Amino acid sequence: MSMLNGGLDHKLELHILELKLRVTNIKKDAIGSYTHALIKIALLPHSCPKFFSFTETKGGYTVIVEDNLYSELPKGESIDVADPIWRVLTVSAGALGSHKLTGISKIVKTVISPLADNNISVLIISTYQSDYVLVKDFDLQTAIKCLSCNFKIFMETPSGLESIEVSIGDRMEGMLKKNDISDHRPIKHPLTCLHNRFHISSVDMQMVQTLMPIILDFMFYSSSKPKLAEGYEIFFHLSIVEGDITLVLDNESLSRFPSGSLHTSNSDECWRMLRIGDSPLGFEECGIVAQVSEPIADADISTYYICTFLFDHQMIPEGEISHALEILDSLKVS
Amino acid sequence: MSMLNGGLDHKLELHILELKLRVTNIKKDAIGSYTHALIKIALLPHSCPKFFSFTETKGGYTVIVEDNLYSELPKGESIDVADPIWRVLTVSAGALGSHKLTGISKIVKTVISPLADNNISVLIISTYQSDYVLVKDFDLQTAIKCLSCNFKIFMETPSGLESIEVSIGDRMEGMLKKNDISDHRPIKHPLTCLHNRFHISSVDMQMVQTLMPIILDFMFYSSSKPKLAEGYEIFFHLSIVEGDITLVLDNESLSRFPSGSLHTSNSDECWRMLRIGDSPLGFEECGIVAQVSEPIADADISTYYICTFLFDHQMIPEGEISHALEILDSLKVS
Repeated sequence: MSMLNGGLDHKLELHILELKLRVTNIKKDAIGSYTHALIKIALLPHSCPKFFSFTETKGGYTVIVEDNLYSELPKGESIDVADPIWRVLTVSAGALGSHKLTGISKIVKTVISPLADNNISVLIISTYQSDYVLVKDFDLQTAIKCLSCNFKIFMETPSGLESIEVSIGDRMEGMLKKNDISDHRPIKHPLTCLHNRFHISSVDMQMVQTLMPIILDFMFYSSSKPKLAEGYEIFFHLSIVEGDITLVLDNESLSRFPSGSLHTSNSDECWRMLRIGDSPLGFEECGIVAQVSEPIADADISTYYICTFLFDHQMIPEGEISHALEILDSLKVS
Repeated sequence: MSMLNGGLDHKLELHILELKLRVTNIKKDAIGSYTHALIKIALLPHSCPKFFSFTETKGGYTVIVEDNLYSELPKGESIDVADPIWRVLTVSAGALGSHKLTGISKIVKTVISPLADNNISVLIISTYQSDYVLVKDFDLQTAIKCLSCNFKIFMETPSGLESIEVSIGDRMEGMLKKNDISDHRPIKHPLTCLHNRFHISSVDMQMVQTLMPIILDFMFYSSSKPKLAEGYEIFFHLSIVEGDITLVLDNESLSRFPSGSLHTSNSDECWRMLRIGDSPLGFEECGIVAQVSEPIADADISTYYICTFLFDHQMIPEGEISHALEILDSLKVS
């Protein structure tokens, strides 16, 4: 039994947010047609998305928005949508205490592995403050059952103002529960380690106004930028979750922000990024996150994770990247 | 001979800027398709339009941009363009000294009347700092000749870094010169006095970054705003000329800006606005500006002027509006 998984009285809290999300992908050359709507959703003075995630990769723009704001996005052949509604689970940060690991390494054993074991496909969005696990609305009840042995589970009421504890009937019925993963899962998708060095940073809401021209430039105008060198890839991520803003930027991009305008968790440390997959991963396959994050967490390495419409992205502290690659290489399906 | 028009040694300087402008009108419901391009032209960290004017009225969005940036705007049936290239004349502010009038009242006798007398159609864009007189490139040589008796005329070199004096051959040849306008011109177009109370304000470049979310909201999202009361009309103007930013806003809009973030010329004084015309004025008719500004200047009333694609807009200090309306009413063609 994991250290985190003590007696009933000490169980951690897992919250199911009152959010219904859409996961979309905007094609690379169509961003101009979506700028007006995306600014309205996320960046105007009265915009207050409860959950907004925007990630540019070489494959397009993954935009995750609340279902009620999704209607603002023009429909057409320039936008792809992952069919179902997605729900959001998060382990309250305070509950995890002063765990030395950061990012999803903290929740691999208690959340990510159990969901993988029970064939629930997830999308992960790590932020500066917390990690969000998205599951299909269709899978929510199964996810609740399967996590109920590790957590007291709370569901936000529709007002979003309070949470009520979810009562679970026969909580273990039919659930797989592997407490000890002695053998790691084989890694099924190719991994590509980008040459860029990344920072995971946050901005406070007041500062974000001042940074708006730079942020707009990064979000919508990368096509005017010079081509990147071999081995480098474009990756820009902005998330806004209940007023908390996270930016994931490489060194080059960070240097364009005024010094001191962003908070970085550890300003001396860069993160390296592994792209998982080289053909689109889809939304059905389970266990992809678990394959690459279990062995990293077991080696006591922190890891952030950002899923996009096509590929997954795992971030690892630069000082640990060689060690991490060794571990992951040994698990690759040959 | 006007006081401003002394001996050769004391002549005022008029500058012809090294700018070739396009005058466009974006249809009301199409602004979403132009947001990406307009932000790129005017609002990104490295945007530095030499002349950019954006005016929303109930008839659409008048956008005036440099010819080389005009290519950024998507073409199609949602955008109308006034065919020719327009050139920009301006009287250097310093040269006018401590004239008690502000706005175009200072240049009515020396610029606006002579151009009207010589059948040169003009567009006027008043800013917080100066007034710009746009003439068709086709009319530029005639305009130079006709203004050369009042001004030493300088033409910016293509680099824009220096100006050289324009030498005029037989400067008065064939030019009409009315030094005394005893009878005012009849006013040919209907005038509508809006109920809104306006402010002419400027922002410094650093502050504009902080205000970006509000400015974006005003520029591109008026369709989400509540309908205005009877007699009020939407009018929002932003210009950027060589780094100087002017905003023309009504009271309601001004109240949405943090206090102290905008400079207003006289914070206690509001301006009232007359819309000139109720069917599109076009770009051929001459003397429209002169008709309404000569009698106002003669009555020692300050006036700002902003032309849009469809109509002209004259601003008059609130304290003088009754007097101004009396004067103008008496000149209306019945």
